[in-house]
Amino acid sequence: MSGWEVFYESLTPPDGFEETKRKLQEFCQRQSPQTKIVLVTSGGTTIPLEHNTVRFVDNFSAGTRGSASAEYFLGAGYAVIFVFRQKSLEPFSRHFMGQKFLNMLEMVDENECLSIKVKGSNVELLRPILHQYQEVERSGRLLQVPFTTLSDYMWLLRAASESLSSIGSRAMLYLAAAVSDFYVPMDKMPTHKMQSDAGPPTISLQLVPKVLKPLVNMWVPNAYVVSFKLETDTALLIKKSREALKKYNHKLVIANILQTRKFRVVFVFPDTDYEVTLNDQEIADNIEIESKIVDDLAKKHDNYISGMV
Amino acid sequence: MSGWEVFYESLTPPDGFEETKRKLQEFCQRQSPQTKIVLVTSGGTTIPLEHNTVRFVDNFSAGTRGSASAEYFLGAGYAVIFVFRQKSLEPFSRHFMGQKFLNMLEMVDENECLSIKVKGSNVELLRPILHQYQEVERSGRLLQVPFTTLSDYMWLLRAASESLSSIGSRAMLYLAAAVSDFYVPMDKMPTHKMQSDAGPPTISLQLVPKVLKPLVNMWVPNAYVVSFKLETDTALLIKKSREALKKYNHKLVIANILQTRKFRVVFVFPDTDYEVTLNDQEIADNIEIESKIVDDLAKKHDNYISGMV
Repeated sequence: MSGWEVFYESLTPPDGFEETKRKLQEFCQRQSPQTKIVLVTSGGTTIPLEHNTVRFVDNFSAGTRGSASAEYFLGAGYAVIFVFRQKSLEPFSRHFMGQKFLNMLEMVDENECLSIKVKGSNVELLRPILHQYQEVERSGRLLQVPFTTLSDYMWLLRAASESLSSIGSRAMLYLAAAVSDFYVPMDKMPTHKMQSDAGPPTISLQLVPKVLKPLVNMWVPNAYVVSFKLETDTALLIKKSREALKKYNHKLVIANILQTRKFRVVFVFPDTDYEVTLNDQEIADNIEIESKIVDDLAKKHDNYISGMV
Repeated sequence: MSGWEVFYESLTPPDGFEETKRKLQEFCQRQSPQTKIVLVTSGGTTIPLEHNTVRFVDNFSAGTRGSASAEYFLGAGYAVIFVFRQKSLEPFSRHFMGQKFLNMLEMVDENECLSIKVKGSNVELLRPILHQYQEVERSGRLLQVPFTTLSDYMWLLRAASESLSSIGSRAMLYLAAAVSDFYVPMDKMPTHKMQSDAGPPTISLQLVPKVLKPLVNMWVPNAYVVSFKLETDTALLIKKSREALKKYNHKLVIANILQTRKFRVVFVFPDTDYEVTLNDQEIADNIEIESKIVDDLAKKHDNYISGMV
């Protein structure tokens, strides 16, 4: 058995896994034969430090990249499987977090009938988003699947990939989730909350095997696979991206630096790379870089499907 | 210097700290002389593992206890300082997370004027919450202060406590946040994202000094201070709660077990303890245990203010 097979054997599938698998398959079968389907993963995975989990290691990610991209893929006609960290940002609702939503509402007394309305100034903002959301709901083009732990994510990634394998090159995988490189094996984990009386604990982590290799080569061999690389050190970024392409044999790494990721990414292909950026005017106009990323990718994907690449 | 003083010296205050301090003081001064003010802390603190933070250790907490309690304290006439983990649950909006909000809306074309309304079936649900939210906003009885890291939390806890010291026994501190016992000192932290090439890292944690001691004895000596204890092991719970009361000299520990915390807590006083629970009927009626906790506490606090305890 390879490292990743041993790894999967050591993990328990998430609750309701068989039902989720059924939903994934049904979703892929239900789409029309021309529809492209993208799997978007989003948000960070957790590594529990105790079986009865009070503490965990987490990866910094609000799900901004993934949730915005999912919205633009839907806008570009894709069906979207959105595998996301529970409580991270979701397409559409991401625009109205926290108390923002309550601030948009007013109570209106019309003909002695009390109703609640969106205030005039907010209608223009909300209308296009609500419109697209309702259209997506009606057409059944969005399937949301939540995860919390690294283990949940691993099982769902494989199941979603396998359900996409039947549509060949029409499938894209857009792996934007911030997946931990490390984990604490089940048998190294204490059952109860770690106690501080005995002094601070030391957490020993193990490397997570790279599943991108079986994913690209076995699970979805004909799909257009895009991975992400986030670093804080510019010097490492392109080098590490190219190494990843060589090792895993997929199509594209979208590389970004933590501090500038909202304005600048680099598309790294095996033999070329170029920047996708927002200029000052676009930033002032609240253009999201994900709209440009998805635009570019949809074209690349079309070329790939028609055998031009 | 005590351990906690050294600890504070090693931490950088959060962005905009002086402005936040000013807001806290202004909030406390603005309330009427009869108003009781409660500081509710809510959600988990993070411990960054890198200066440019990609990874962090987190404490399991969605902010359910804190956000629900804040709402009931407002209902009981308190002014509330809500110090909460950014993106955790907030009072009022907690009822409408994720896509729930968009599902409640419909577009209506009235006299050629497009408006957006809450659908009929949701009006009854939303009305009392929106009503209370708007009343609280108008009366200026809620101040929300977000934190992310343990360090942010520590600074804000001290500032909020100090701003409450002027109102003496009318202040309550309801410390429901899940605060880490451990941290990684600034000088032990790598600058950039930890690289996996060299094998898995080992994270060495240090104990966080207990600030409940200076808080109770120096910062707000006349306030009614309530702390929480969460364990996964029942055998430890009451024993550890009583030890905490002895050590820190505050009024009450609310003790709970991870798995049953939504239905059962134990109020542990220095010389007595009793359970606050939901019965099956209350659970079926969606009664929240925080309503009972706050009811009980508000009475205890009144007795304390009038010198009866």
